[in-house]
Amino acid sequence: MNIQTLYSTSAPLHTPLAKHSDITWRMHATQDVKYNVSIVNGLLNPENSSLANACGKYNNNNDKTKRLVVIDSMVFDLYGDKLKIYFGSWNFDISWKILSGDEINKNMESAIEVTKSMADAGLLRRGEVVVGIGGGVLLDVVGFASSLYRRGVPYIRIPTTLMGQIDAGIGIKTGVNHGDHKNRLGSYFAPSSALIDTSFLGSLNQRHISNGVAEIIKMALIKDRALFELLDSISSHLTPGAFASDDLTIREIMSRAIAGMLAELEPNLWEAELARCVDYGHTFSPSLELLATPTLLHGEAVAVDMALCVALAKGRALLTDEEADRAIALIGKSGLPITHPIFEQDLLEKALADTVKHRDGLQRIPLTNGIGAATFVNDLTSGELTKALDFIAERQHLREQATVL
Amino acid sequence: MNIQTLYSTSAPLHTPLAKHSDITWRMHATQDVKYNVSIVNGLLNPENSSLANACGKYNNNNDKTKRLVVIDSMVFDLYGDKLKIYFGSWNFDISWKILSGDEINKNMESAIEVTKSMADAGLLRRGEVVVGIGGGVLLDVVGFASSLYRRGVPYIRIPTTLMGQIDAGIGIKTGVNHGDHKNRLGSYFAPSSALIDTSFLGSLNQRHISNGVAEIIKMALIKDRALFELLDSISSHLTPGAFASDDLTIREIMSRAIAGMLAELEPNLWEAELARCVDYGHTFSPSLELLATPTLLHGEAVAVDMALCVALAKGRALLTDEEADRAIALIGKSGLPITHPIFEQDLLEKALADTVKHRDGLQRIPLTNGIGAATFVNDLTSGELTKALDFIAERQHLREQATVL
Repeated sequence: MNIQTLYSTSAPLHTPLAKHSDITWRMHATQDVKYNVSIVNGLLNPENSSLANACGKYNNNNDKTKRLVVIDSMVFDLYGDKLKIYFGSWNFDISWKILSGDEINKNMESAIEVTKSMADAGLLRRGEVVVGIGGGVLLDVVGFASSLYRRGVPYIRIPTTLMGQIDAGIGIKTGVNHGDHKNRLGSYFAPSSALIDTSFLGSLNQRHISNGVAEIIKMALIKDRALFELLDSISSHLTPGAFASDDLTIREIMSRAIAGMLAELEPNLWEAELARCVDYGHTFSPSLELLATPTLLHGEAVAVDMALCVALAKGRALLTDEEADRAIALIGKSGLPITHPIFEQDLLEKALADTVKHRDGLQRIPLTNGIGAATFVNDLTSGELTKALDFIAERQHLREQATVL
Repeated sequence: MNIQTLYSTSAPLHTPLAKHSDITWRMHATQDVKYNVSIVNGLLNPENSSLANACGKYNNNNDKTKRLVVIDSMVFDLYGDKLKIYFGSWNFDISWKILSGDEINKNMESAIEVTKSMADAGLLRRGEVVVGIGGGVLLDVVGFASSLYRRGVPYIRIPTTLMGQIDAGIGIKTGVNHGDHKNRLGSYFAPSSALIDTSFLGSLNQRHISNGVAEIIKMALIKDRALFELLDSISSHLTPGAFASDDLTIREIMSRAIAGMLAELEPNLWEAELARCVDYGHTFSPSLELLATPTLLHGEAVAVDMALCVALAKGRALLTDEEADRAIALIGKSGLPITHPIFEQDLLEKALADTVKHRDGLQRIPLTNGIGAATFVNDLTSGELTKALDFIAERQHLREQATVL
């Protein structure tokens, strides 16, 4: 047939496109992502509108609006009644999905279970936000499910652990463990907001406070010397009660930790750059954590990795002896381990090989460059690992002796 | 303790952040997404470098570079040897993952299976692209798995069906069916490139050609009158052989269909706007398709929905009687159905209610506004559905009589 004939019809026609053999169309679009992270005091006080506003439209007549709340079972036990009163007073009709927030349940099955609750709740695609309340594991699972369901539905994060409030609950990474790997399946999916109320921290035990402190020490070591000094000055008072209180130093520590983390995340939200200083303490620890779960918490694994990295930095004269001693002492004083029985040469080399794949072929190991600054290393040797392990073993020995004496 | 004391140390310190009660940090970032869609003739010809270039670094020495190819089993049977020769000649070391591309396998289990192949292949996070080769189902599953694994690894799409080449294989949507819903879990995740070689279409049967033609008719009806005229002029020659040939009209049809789809996708890649004219024929059909799988193909369900929408548009004087007749005739001449035994009032109302949730509370039904233009409707009534069904039943009756005579 003759194309030219067609182009003389009365319809609005364009120049033919297909005169050449090969054609390429270049697609280009930008996605704008915005979300707020807020410290809100008295989040569950019915007179405080922050949570109701974050949940979107509410009304004061009798038409209740639907929302799905996915909540950690322990948090529900402690705060379920307060939450019911809060949501009731703002006229929300809540479907509750109660999940265990244990690391062992951070898997695809849990994420799928959450998407089923979304389907059952019959939420609108954009207008009816999902609310996640719990620790880092729960928020990772809820965020992941929210990113999958209908290719993404809005959700808000309410972290209730220290780890969640200063790290896992304020970024856009979601995920679950899979196969033999931590967070092997996941997505980058921003919440519509993250709301932090430190009064939740009063219910944690000391070990879970220390777990979160590990990530604060990380921020201090790689980018905030003032934060290091603050932590060091009150390292014996980093208790649940203190974190839940109005103590000015604690508030300063929280703000600096959050602000520091967000400042690192914002320009690299999708990790286009794989050399990330917030990966400090996360080079060797994923393998340790996966093997040692559930006896070892995430922050504890990070602490063991950080202690090693302090020794590695000292070996390269990136820290003075005194700085290295102070850093390792702070980890210890915070109730965190600096060694682990399986954290040995063989594991470290395998872990590094795994991490190198995740960092696209280079080591990109963040090390401290003085306390409060970072540099990246791509040429770490087995010999350096051996020496660092020896140094840490020696420190651990001294620590144990001091405990005995 | 006294914060002021700390601020007089020699470390570089900043203004305290936590003097006030509540604090909000506003996060804002933009993600730039770019990818190419190319028509490449002779894609599997070892002398053609397009595919090798899309796969990234290759080398001419003896160091083979690893890639994972996820391929539809039928495509592998037909083109496996050619592909092996191609990849061999460009020195790639390929891990093959062969999957069934049937709609019934478009589920989470298949996606997880693909992520396992990614783990087994031991690919680097960014440098070693995954290649998906097959129809829309397979590419949706591979794209989904690629978006999940390590929160996203690069992949390229090589659609081998007409449906894939002009619709499912060139956008950024990925997904699997879940529960009682089509594509209920998924992601927006752009490929690094999509490569189209129409010679694959020569291996399809006539029904799968018609399946893809349904989506081309969609583009014609809602945005490209010239494309409608082209299709109408050769509706009896829309064969596998014609699509695989150099026929100028077919090439023009392909280019217009692809260009039209990409032009609709690019400004709305993440579907911020839920009123999408490319959802024409996709308002009622998802429920039909899910119930009628595997006897009904996607394009066939879309055709049934489009015929109804033509009748709805006619009922609102958005199409003249003659335009409606021509539109329905084109659907029929292309070997596509205009009715289905279960496509009745009750199903339509349930399907619409489901779609309204997916479109966040409004109908947002695209209808033709003359042939080649679209408008959106939010106030469709049950009465209009009844009338439209009656009209289509009458046309179907005439069609059957014509066949008998």
